[in-house]
Amino acid sequence: MALIVQKFGGTSVGSVERIANVAERVARARAAGDDLVVVVSAMSGETNRLLALGRDVAAEQAPHPRELDALVATGEQVASALLAIALEARGVPALSLLAHQIRLRTDAAHTKARIRTIDDRPLREVLAAGRVAVVAGFQGVDEEGNITTLGRGGSDTTAVALAAALGADVCEIYTDVDGVYTTDPRICPSAQKVPKISYEEMLELASLGAKVLQIRSVEMAMKHGVVVHVRTSFTDAEGTVVTKEDESLEAIVVAGVALDRDVAKVTIRGVSDEPGLAATLFEALADAHVVVDMIIQNVSEDDRTDLTFTVSRGDVETARPIAERALGEKKRGEVVVDTRPAKVSIVGLGMRTHAGVAAKMFRLLAAAGINIEAISTSEIKVSCLIAEARGEDAVRALHEGFGLGAPR
Amino acid sequence: MALIVQKFGGTSVGSVERIANVAERVARARAAGDDLVVVVSAMSGETNRLLALGRDVAAEQAPHPRELDALVATGEQVASALLAIALEARGVPALSLLAHQIRLRTDAAHTKARIRTIDDRPLREVLAAGRVAVVAGFQGVDEEGNITTLGRGGSDTTAVALAAALGADVCEIYTDVDGVYTTDPRICPSAQKVPKISYEEMLELASLGAKVLQIRSVEMAMKHGVVVHVRTSFTDAEGTVVTKEDESLEAIVVAGVALDRDVAKVTIRGVSDEPGLAATLFEALADAHVVVDMIIQNVSEDDRTDLTFTVSRGDVETARPIAERALGEKKRGEVVVDTRPAKVSIVGLGMRTHAGVAAKMFRLLAAAGINIEAISTSEIKVSCLIAEARGEDAVRALHEGFGLGAPR
Repeated sequence: MALIVQKFGGTSVGSVERIANVAERVARARAAGDDLVVVVSAMSGETNRLLALGRDVAAEQAPHPRELDALVATGEQVASALLAIALEARGVPALSLLAHQIRLRTDAAHTKARIRTIDDRPLREVLAAGRVAVVAGFQGVDEEGNITTLGRGGSDTTAVALAAALGADVCEIYTDVDGVYTTDPRICPSAQKVPKISYEEMLELASLGAKVLQIRSVEMAMKHGVVVHVRTSFTDAEGTVVTKEDESLEAIVVAGVALDRDVAKVTIRGVSDEPGLAATLFEALADAHVVVDMIIQNVSEDDRTDLTFTVSRGDVETARPIAERALGEKKRGEVVVDTRPAKVSIVGLGMRTHAGVAAKMFRLLAAAGINIEAISTSEIKVSCLIAEARGEDAVRALHEGFGLGAPR
Repeated sequence: MALIVQKFGGTSVGSVERIANVAERVARARAAGDDLVVVVSAMSGETNRLLALGRDVAAEQAPHPRELDALVATGEQVASALLAIALEARGVPALSLLAHQIRLRTDAAHTKARIRTIDDRPLREVLAAGRVAVVAGFQGVDEEGNITTLGRGGSDTTAVALAAALGADVCEIYTDVDGVYTTDPRICPSAQKVPKISYEEMLELASLGAKVLQIRSVEMAMKHGVVVHVRTSFTDAEGTVVTKEDESLEAIVVAGVALDRDVAKVTIRGVSDEPGLAATLFEALADAHVVVDMIIQNVSEDDRTDLTFTVSRGDVETARPIAERALGEKKRGEVVVDTRPAKVSIVGLGMRTHAGVAAKMFRLLAAAGINIEAISTSEIKVSCLIAEARGEDAVRALHEGFGLGAPR
């Protein structure tokens, strides 16, 4: 008998019929003898509907964050009550539970709260009574009893946190994709589902756009050693297990290829290489809530330098004037913005022990006639900026070149 | 500086525009220096939408009552958060509060819970901090922390209970009618708004179909001496104040005339007048959750009797077989059902001290050529069953005959 946390996203509970499907899936797992904690998101579209209502009554102001949280948290409350009703109607004893009922405490950072503590006793009592615990995801309560929310995709984080608190055998995340692929199957039809992947690789892939799992939930799973199984609620197919690296994982040099099209490149050309310029620039960007991805700097011979960084395209008009102010009063040098690059990346634990992986990537791109505009590397990832128009060609060339199309 | 509880019904918060109107009304009252606790119902239509979802996922079963409560309580949570957002956006400090946050404890009778205790401290803290407390009506929590609801119209009860707990100066109930009238203005255009009415009269009128106030909330107001002001949120007009009787009230013999069309009459003819028959019959009806209104029995000379009672028309097919079983095995006597009567009633505290009010009522009906099928009286009410087709004529004759058309 296992203790399993299952999380169903908004699409999986998006209609009366789909809630019935989820109830039947949960009933089967329960019949197999497992103890179940089920975390649900709001029915798809509901969070956006509530946010729009909140905006509309706010009379041109930003809605008050505490009240926005009390508002949108109802989406998960509705979904959890509906699933509990559906389970009870099928003869499966169930109990819907809200954050204040399971004492899921967070800090007071409304709309983006972080979990502090979970009291596992209320949940253990529900399980001991033979019931399925149906927990409203995404929500918490702060020390004062105010309702908080964990930010977009927070239900994944709820599920992993509950799995950690309960020492669950596995945390199953049901979503509308059936697992993690070696690359986007729409770009590369030979893309393979990865049966097993390490937390580290998942983190790099998630941040690169393969958005099957909230990055925070992967960090939390890694920290607490929670085994996460990403799968679809529409079939019984096995998905992808995200877990600690092991020897079998290490043998694979490149686990996946990711393409990120939401990239803008800002280059400051010919600035003086003075100490503190980079610090001043990136502090100002952080203060403006601009998230910087890649940073590339090369010092040239005459003490002048080119500094390049990338941001989301939506942030480029915030970043440009900050970069221009960084040129200083003398205005030597210039700022050049390119909103048409794409970033192609390869990710794999095996890179740490295999030499020449980056070189092979550059060679594969060159063979495909694709020019590399910038390069950035980490321990388990190599990213190249290329022209967006060649993005899909690059993915196919790398996927093929690293042999990812073959079933593992 | 007064402490005022205001309650806004589903129509008053039924759209973004109406929530904005309510926010502006609350802002004006706050600017006048009053301390405000505002209770809201769900946006109109929302409770029914949620109930339908609950029914739909229940797969032909009755939805589990605990989960149904967790589901529908979200309607008031949404409305309270939206009103708090609207107030904050207009510069009025506000805080939305749920039942568990103000510790509004009820029994565990899901979907029809009764309030046990309210801890007034959380609300007093909010008021002391200069904030408007925006409370989600209709909901409570039981001793275990489960969400309960107070039954249809329960937000009126929440408002009166909070006014009692806080010792508020007045409980203003905002609804889509602007007060209590001497009779239905659609039937009798000369109907007058009653500026002041006693709890007792209001109870009799409410149960007779002038449904401006939940009957439970009137009982609670009477018990705790809460002054209730029924008024509309669409204008600034004064409505009707419901309060203790006083001398000025006593001078008025008849306060109002009510017509109830949802009446079915069940008569058991010629049964033996045996002890226990009535007890057996009405116990069986109560077990079947049939609410009996009037009961009339006349013993005839030969120890046989006619027993008549009235029920809602929706209950008549439940009541009929119960009445037939009450005839016993010998099947002497017969059951006759009439689904076409109406009940016209006059209500007034002054009846207690004025003789001949009932006689005057019968005379007025006779003068209008209206036949009386049955009569039932209480201390402050006389009700007559008449043919439904003559119901409106009867209301007009009584309203005119008792001089209710003149402004008071």
